Amino acid sequence: MDAAPTLEELGEHLVIQEIVAAAPSAINGDDAAVMYPAEPNTRTVATTDTLVEGRHFRREWSTPREVGHKAIVQNFADVEAMGARPLAALLSFAAPGDTPVGYVKEIASGIAERCKLYSAQLVGGDLTRADQLILTVTALGSLGGSRKPLTLDAARVGQRIVAHGKIGYSAAGLALLQHYGRAHVPERFEPLVSAHVTPHLEPGRGIVARATGATSMTDNSDGLVVDVGAIARRSGVGIDLEAEAIAPDELLLAAGEAVNQDPWEWVLSGGEDHTLIAATDKDAASGFRPIGRVVKGAGVTVDGAKPRYNTGWTSY
Amino acid sequence: MDAAPTLEELGEHLVIQEIVAAAPSAINGDDAAVMYPAEPNTRTVATTDTLVEGRHFRREWSTPREVGHKAIVQNFADVEAMGARPLAALLSFAAPGDTPVGYVKEIASGIAERCKLYSAQLVGGDLTRADQLILTVTALGSLGGSRKPLTLDAARVGQRIVAHGKIGYSAAGLALLQHYGRAHVPERFEPLVSAHVTPHLEPGRGIVARATGATSMTDNSDGLVVDVGAIARRSGVGIDLEAEAIAPDELLLAAGEAVNQDPWEWVLSGGEDHTLIAATDKDAASGFRPIGRVVKGAGVTVDGAKPRYNTGWTSY
Repeated sequence: MDAAPTLEELGEHLVIQEIVAAAPSAINGDDAAVMYPAEPNTRTVATTDTLVEGRHFRREWSTPREVGHKAIVQNFADVEAMGARPLAALLSFAAPGDTPVGYVKEIASGIAERCKLYSAQLVGGDLTRADQLILTVTALGSLGGSRKPLTLDAARVGQRIVAHGKIGYSAAGLALLQHYGRAHVPERFEPLVSAHVTPHLEPGRGIVARATGATSMTDNSDGLVVDVGAIARRSGVGIDLEAEAIAPDELLLAAGEAVNQDPWEWVLSGGEDHTLIAATDKDAASGFRPIGRVVKGAGVTVDGAKPRYNTGWTSY
Repeated sequence: MDAAPTLEELGEHLVIQEIVAAAPSAINGDDAAVMYPAEPNTRTVATTDTLVEGRHFRREWSTPREVGHKAIVQNFADVEAMGARPLAALLSFAAPGDTPVGYVKEIASGIAERCKLYSAQLVGGDLTRADQLILTVTALGSLGGSRKPLTLDAARVGQRIVAHGKIGYSAAGLALLQHYGRAHVPERFEPLVSAHVTPHLEPGRGIVARATGATSMTDNSDGLVVDVGAIARRSGVGIDLEAEAIAPDELLLAAGEAVNQDPWEWVLSGGEDHTLIAATDKDAASGFRPIGRVVKGAGVTVDGAKPRYNTGWTSY
């Protein structure tokens, strides 16, 4: 990474030029971005999420490219979780004046890389001086056709609960980083560290779930029990998860031993996996696996019993 | 304002409940907000802007309600400047844990007040802990019908330049606050202070301009010469402003004398007025007044000469 120049030395307009060069878009650069609907009957889906340095990432653990990846995926996962297609992102970037421009360019490159996976673009943004490095991404998506979006309140008794993506990997990665530091995490645990610093969600899984009978969906961002609990509460149902289906795999068990933590805590309470979790009428959609059932009652159980861990990540 | 409880004491979920109660919306509270197009042929317009405490506002100068007003207006002005209608806002709110919840509720009330003027709603957001109080608002708007959006690159030689709103008032207000402090600004200067701490833009002026022959528009956020200069540069034209039409009015002249500054600097270089400035083929639209002409050449002149001040507000 370039040590020089800094944001302060280069000045706002040239820094914005560098960001736009790293993450180009044909519709960036006016007072606002204008997006045409791609399909008939298109609704717009919007969500926003912030990454704060020291709280959601650390420069010694994440490359700036990975910070860009994480900023996009945590937002696009919310769009996918509605059964929609991510189309565009806006970036508000706040940073101290002595931040190297090279660092910002690398974040923008990371944003562009993850956007490209989704055929999406960075279409606008804002650059501000602040004491701390803070990235706020707003994601816009397109919900086509006449089917309902996959809201939290639409799970029904008798449905299956299905999941796409690993559960507990991100929290395990964080625990490993805290224990070893990035440079010294044993290589076999790299998938866990990756899940934390550069989460990945396959584009289109949300649309597939919506097309194959899912009615309600969310992503595992605050913790499995908390996020599944939101579906249960909003839908007025209970959700019973199968212990065997969500049990820590060999890698999580090994990591738990290595850092002397219970991997069940990562599975039940760890957030930031951005795993899609849906309630569906039919068999699990492509890429999803069954992990439980919607039942009468309230709250989340595991094999019919109270989960061992039931808190999640909160900002305060 | 309540001194207690703080964000940390109340916790994330209850703080979010307070914000949503202060700025309610039927479509808030899921992974993402879903918006249906209100008219046929609707395009979505999106923009984002950040307010940083100590940089864009100060608690001793602005009430939290005013901070909410400013966060909305600076974003909705960008939507209006495309000739579109603001419909929705998302708020990413970052603040230290010891911030009083009452302060946050007041900001949310200010956001709701300004949204209501536009028949818009706060439809989503994020709450994060950070060292500094930072508000990022993303505004979404609707551009209906088949006419083009009012982009920066569409001014043509021979057009009039027209403006809606005061020019230089916000910068004058800032200078007065710096000189006197909020409590001691002479009462006659209240319109200038208001323009800075709680800017106002009449809803619908952007649509009116687009309906009556404007082709290019922006808002005066970084400074008159800088913002008009962006239209000139992107359109490949020159813009000549009439000194008489933009000259400081009596209030600006009096404020200039009071704080011993040249009010022409506020007019030419001061930003944050969120005055709409358009290039139009016909007579000025309702609420707009002529302030200049699009001419052959490049850059911005005042009565044919180089402007006395030509810099503007930048973040670095």
